[in-house]
Amino acid sequence: MTDERSKALHAVILAGGSGSRFWPLSREMNPKQMLSVFGGVSLMTRAVRRIMPYTACDAVHVVTGERLFDEIRNHLKAQPELDHLEIDYLVEPLARNTAPAVALAAAVLVERDPESIMIMLPSDHLLEDSELWRNTIEAATNLAATGRMVTIGLKPSRPETGYGYIHAGEELADSRVGAVCGHLVLAFIEKPDRNSAVGFVADGGYLWNSGMLVAKAAVILAELEAAGDAACTHESADGRRIADVARQLAAMSPTEWLTDAGRALYGSLPAVPFDKAALEVSSNVAVVPTALDWSDVGSLLSIEKLGETDSRGNILVGRAYDVDSHDTLVYSADRLVATLGLEGAIVVDTADATLVASKDRVQDVRLIVDMLKAAGAEEITTSRSSLRPWGSWTLLMKCEGFQIKSIDVLPGKRLSVQSHTRRAEHWIVIAGEARILRGDADIVLRANESVYLPVGIVHRMENCGTVPLKVIEVAVGEYLGEDDIVRYSDDYGR
Amino acid sequence: MTDERSKALHAVILAGGSGSRFWPLSREMNPKQMLSVFGGVSLMTRAVRRIMPYTACDAVHVVTGERLFDEIRNHLKAQPELDHLEIDYLVEPLARNTAPAVALAAAVLVERDPESIMIMLPSDHLLEDSELWRNTIEAATNLAATGRMVTIGLKPSRPETGYGYIHAGEELADSRVGAVCGHLVLAFIEKPDRNSAVGFVADGGYLWNSGMLVAKAAVILAELEAAGDAACTHESADGRRIADVARQLAAMSPTEWLTDAGRALYGSLPAVPFDKAALEVSSNVAVVPTALDWSDVGSLLSIEKLGETDSRGNILVGRAYDVDSHDTLVYSADRLVATLGLEGAIVVDTADATLVASKDRVQDVRLIVDMLKAAGAEEITTSRSSLRPWGSWTLLMKCEGFQIKSIDVLPGKRLSVQSHTRRAEHWIVIAGEARILRGDADIVLRANESVYLPVGIVHRMENCGTVPLKVIEVAVGEYLGEDDIVRYSDDYGR
Repeated sequence: MTDERSKALHAVILAGGSGSRFWPLSREMNPKQMLSVFGGVSLMTRAVRRIMPYTACDAVHVVTGERLFDEIRNHLKAQPELDHLEIDYLVEPLARNTAPAVALAAAVLVERDPESIMIMLPSDHLLEDSELWRNTIEAATNLAATGRMVTIGLKPSRPETGYGYIHAGEELADSRVGAVCGHLVLAFIEKPDRNSAVGFVADGGYLWNSGMLVAKAAVILAELEAAGDAACTHESADGRRIADVARQLAAMSPTEWLTDAGRALYGSLPAVPFDKAALEVSSNVAVVPTALDWSDVGSLLSIEKLGETDSRGNILVGRAYDVDSHDTLVYSADRLVATLGLEGAIVVDTADATLVASKDRVQDVRLIVDMLKAAGAEEITTSRSSLRPWGSWTLLMKCEGFQIKSIDVLPGKRLSVQSHTRRAEHWIVIAGEARILRGDADIVLRANESVYLPVGIVHRMENCGTVPLKVIEVAVGEYLGEDDIVRYSDDYGR
Repeated sequence: MTDERSKALHAVILAGGSGSRFWPLSREMNPKQMLSVFGGVSLMTRAVRRIMPYTACDAVHVVTGERLFDEIRNHLKAQPELDHLEIDYLVEPLARNTAPAVALAAAVLVERDPESIMIMLPSDHLLEDSELWRNTIEAATNLAATGRMVTIGLKPSRPETGYGYIHAGEELADSRVGAVCGHLVLAFIEKPDRNSAVGFVADGGYLWNSGMLVAKAAVILAELEAAGDAACTHESADGRRIADVARQLAAMSPTEWLTDAGRALYGSLPAVPFDKAALEVSSNVAVVPTALDWSDVGSLLSIEKLGETDSRGNILVGRAYDVDSHDTLVYSADRLVATLGLEGAIVVDTADATLVASKDRVQDVRLIVDMLKAAGAEEITTSRSSLRPWGSWTLLMKCEGFQIKSIDVLPGKRLSVQSHTRRAEHWIVIAGEARILRGDADIVLRANESVYLPVGIVHRMENCGTVPLKVIEVAVGEYLGEDDIVRYSDDYGR
């Protein structure tokens, strides 16, 4: 890949998903893409990290919704390895599935540079980062530069019925990079039945659809329009309107997107997937088959990757102990879980909620989520801990009138200057050294020292030492919501 | 029952059981008899409350082990309704099953009054308290006064295979009190198979063995000796030694029991149940059949009493939500538990540990306990909260270097004057009013005020208000064990 082309490649990372199939690990405000269960760093962080070498530092765009925006930005700011990026957040006025989201991103890129090539990436998949990934990106980008929409197809390792397939046709000339080259796409196939899937694997010409796409931004808009004009399917009929509205919004400032007018405009679009609206009706689609190790982390059963199978077929992850179970998967984030005589069960235990299910029903976890939502259970929405650019906090206890948090601040980092109108706070330093702004005073606290922050006082906590700072915060008040915060100054522009 | 006889009745409550079949609800230091899941007050408290009207206030004896003694005394002192009792604790030198324990209690009572009648009661059963209970006690006590060992047998309501049975013979003359009268015992039957149990229920002459026994203390020792001389069974062969050792210990002070000499003496006895050592080989045993509502709360399945059965046969207790399970029992103490598509499972969720089992394996929970013990898991031993004479505490979090507790103090009550050699404490008042002794100072704290107690300082917390006092304690130190406490003065003689 030449330096100029690399400069033109924009990464568009779709990070709006709520991942309810992953509850109780995922929550509305801590969805699957933000989970770090698969190897210490979140799926989203890894998606950014994987594409980073192939884009300019101001060419990573993250598409998300208004509700998640703050959490996602905090999350990515907390990743030191992404420090040099100037991530561009495209906050959708409303959730409208992927066709409007991809169109909006494409229109924004066309505004900036009509020649820009975009690679659209899910934020919540597992994918190998390797030389083969580099070759795949290069081959796809080369093909995209010729005006094609280029999907990335994974060589299937098993007759999986949970994925969509791409039927690849003839090889495209001059598209080879290393072991990778492009093919025409003959058809997209929905999740197949078992027999078809077995046939696809035997045939060798069928690939798993990874959801990744590389194309010129202008081509994406043009293809949407063409599909709309062709109107082969119900879903593609609105392609022209989608492209039009995307262009109108791209001409506005992103803050206007979130006004009533912006919302009305975007909200008028149909909530359709980009696959239906454009890819499946275009004859201009290529696929780059690749043997990358990939998973869409589609259900809680994915956590079986994290453990070893014992002699009875069980996989135990975390503080889990079993007697006489078979084919059972247990994930404990922290607490102790004991299982006895289960068959084909899955247990997922988190700080505030536990799921116990029959393995063969794991795809129906959304039914639980729906039930809990109807019951107003807050365990659907919020997670007990949250990453911040300065470190992280964990909620230890929440009761009528008070709550207790553990706050960890990285060396040299500090929270915003802030005050609260309805809660007082007691901070007790457990480890490290804290500089505390408290009204006009500047105090240094060490382990086992504490400070009281009455309602209304302006305050800030800073780790002025060289080791991580741990503080226990006891907040007292009748209202304890995160939104009771007035920020006066913030190192992270919040 | 005459007033004189009532004065002679001593209650001997066996409270040494570790209740491992009830894990994770029960713990070694919070065994089944101390659980309040069945109606707000512990099984042990209810056992004391049920027998209290029939004994003098200094005639309630609680038999337990050295390890549990403090917890049990704290627990019973925390029950205001038992305030007027002077409970006598008989702390066994070692655990040696019920024959030595019953003999020890009997010998102690004979020392005090050769004519005393004792009623031996399990501390961890559910039992109806009613007029029928009164009649049962009176009939059994009357019969015991004639020199018999009198068991209490429950009329079976179902062919239960988990209980032992008593085969009742002819009615004993002049034993009737209300609807209750005594019978000779023909035989004791171990847990029967299903067919036998069905036959027993149909026959009408078979009763569940409740484990309760009324007899003169002197008769108990004499019967043990006689059984030992007869030596009909291996277990009864040592009856004379058991009675001898019990008399020797009864002649010592209870503090001597816990010396090496006392332990060696008691430890030389065989660990046999009183049923085997005496009851089953004596011809002097009567039974009082009664229709009291009773349960030995023998397994976790007992918690099904706490909920309603839904249309799919599930019982959900606490914050539990289910989709499509059948015949499943869920108990959540506090956290959220969701179940999906389970069949015949039991889920028991507590603050720090969760058990998920197949219902038909619930009798094997001890296998889990054994496994966890081998793994050194502290969730086997300690419970997250504990009753105290002054209120209660709950452990919220324990980490390397610090722990957080919630402390609730009843109006007018106070903790001991104490100090710690290895931890400092921060107290934050959440609700109520606290008088704090801190070195030489006497401080009053109200909600949202805090105090710091450095290592070594002498301190006390008192609820000087009229509403419950709630305090959050953050303790900081390298060693945080409960045993790091020096008590200078205590309202409860600890």
